[in-house]
Amino acid sequence: MAQNIYDNDDFFAKYSTFRRQVEGLDGAPEWASLRAMLPDMRGLRVLDLGCGFGWFCRWARDAGAVSAVGIDLSERMLARAAEMTGDDGITYLRGDLETVDLPESTFDVVYSSLAFHYVVAFERLVREIWRSLSPGGGLVCSAEHPLYTAPSRPGWITDEDGRKTWPVDSYLKEGPRTTDWLAPGVVKQHRTLGTYVNTLVGCGFVVEHVEEWGPTEEQVAEIPDMAEEWERPTFVLVGARRR
Amino acid sequence: MAQNIYDNDDFFAKYSTFRRQVEGLDGAPEWASLRAMLPDMRGLRVLDLGCGFGWFCRWARDAGAVSAVGIDLSERMLARAAEMTGDDGITYLRGDLETVDLPESTFDVVYSSLAFHYVVAFERLVREIWRSLSPGGGLVCSAEHPLYTAPSRPGWITDEDGRKTWPVDSYLKEGPRTTDWLAPGVVKQHRTLGTYVNTLVGCGFVVEHVEEWGPTEEQVAEIPDMAEEWERPTFVLVGARRR
Repeated sequence: MAQNIYDNDDFFAKYSTFRRQVEGLDGAPEWASLRAMLPDMRGLRVLDLGCGFGWFCRWARDAGAVSAVGIDLSERMLARAAEMTGDDGITYLRGDLETVDLPESTFDVVYSSLAFHYVVAFERLVREIWRSLSPGGGLVCSAEHPLYTAPSRPGWITDEDGRKTWPVDSYLKEGPRTTDWLAPGVVKQHRTLGTYVNTLVGCGFVVEHVEEWGPTEEQVAEIPDMAEEWERPTFVLVGARRR
Repeated sequence: MAQNIYDNDDFFAKYSTFRRQVEGLDGAPEWASLRAMLPDMRGLRVLDLGCGFGWFCRWARDAGAVSAVGIDLSERMLARAAEMTGDDGITYLRGDLETVDLPESTFDVVYSSLAFHYVVAFERLVREIWRSLSPGGGLVCSAEHPLYTAPSRPGWITDEDGRKTWPVDSYLKEGPRTTDWLAPGVVKQHRTLGTYVNTLVGCGFVVEHVEEWGPTEEQVAEIPDMAEEWERPTFVLVGARRR
């Protein structure tokens, strides 16, 4: 089974204070870019893998989706999601993305925000997603950027001239990276951008958009620290379509 | 007009001693990966953009291509290419990838090795390539990897633990980078992997393969310094098909 760090007391307490958890989708700076990749939701059946507090499922329903299914490994996240909604069109299910079986040709859009970099059996999951989409259906997803996950010891350094850089090593060495992020010993899976793209293509997707996300000038004016994303992006967003 | 650094005396003298120039395609460690993306060449019409000494055109003809056209900006490279061939099926033309006009639906395969990172008007060039391919035709190309081109001051550093890293900044700041590589003031164009992929998709290509190239164990056994590619790749290879 996958590591379930989100049900760790400390992790959950800290994670729950994040702007993207408190404010929902609009608290995530990359949301506008993800939304731009999504189709008109009216009449669509939607699946969110790693749904967390259910913000996306609720947004999709508000935007006209006929149904939304959210899957997450964390019981706490799902309990909070259930508390926040009273919509019969939304179904939350507990599931492990390493082993989840998805129903065939059932969804028009599969969405996943910042979950794939936890998944070891990524190709298996992509095959499941492909199978679960209706022909022509779309996948819109994000993951931590390989530049962010690659280093054996991630962190910024500042050189003698004041230049801030992100030292990269091990970029082509795919596999687990253990970091102390909100809690000690959080394991993420590093894979290259090439692997993300080639896995999607190999499973029958047409890749439509790859966005190494950076903030707008307006976002940096509001939160100056966000400028570091221009030096080294944290997120990669991908839009793909089932052939 | 594009910078024509290859006709600089010093640059040309040094560049001509590179293994990939002396030994041809087999002297380029990434060639096996590029070749794996190429179709059976028998009966095909081939274009090489940035053909240099013409190694690829000659290989393509030996592999059964009915014709090969090589385009390069450097008169010296083309003169050397002409010296090395006596094949009426190969045509070398002088042309600037910034402004080149390509004939319509003329080629089955367009190939380009390590030229695109010099091109400012990249989207224009990709449209020309698309137009010049027959429907279903393929583009196989390589460029310097964005991780390699991004930094404002590229170079390896070694930290106190002996860990070798490649400090990255400016990754999302696309545009010119001036380095002293074989000659002072060589200008390359940095663009992200996302931009490479999205430009191809936007011009009507289906992206089939993205390879952030690294050496095999055997290659590193032969040339141990090549292991640094595993830390930070120098090349990205892309295979795409005209829809």
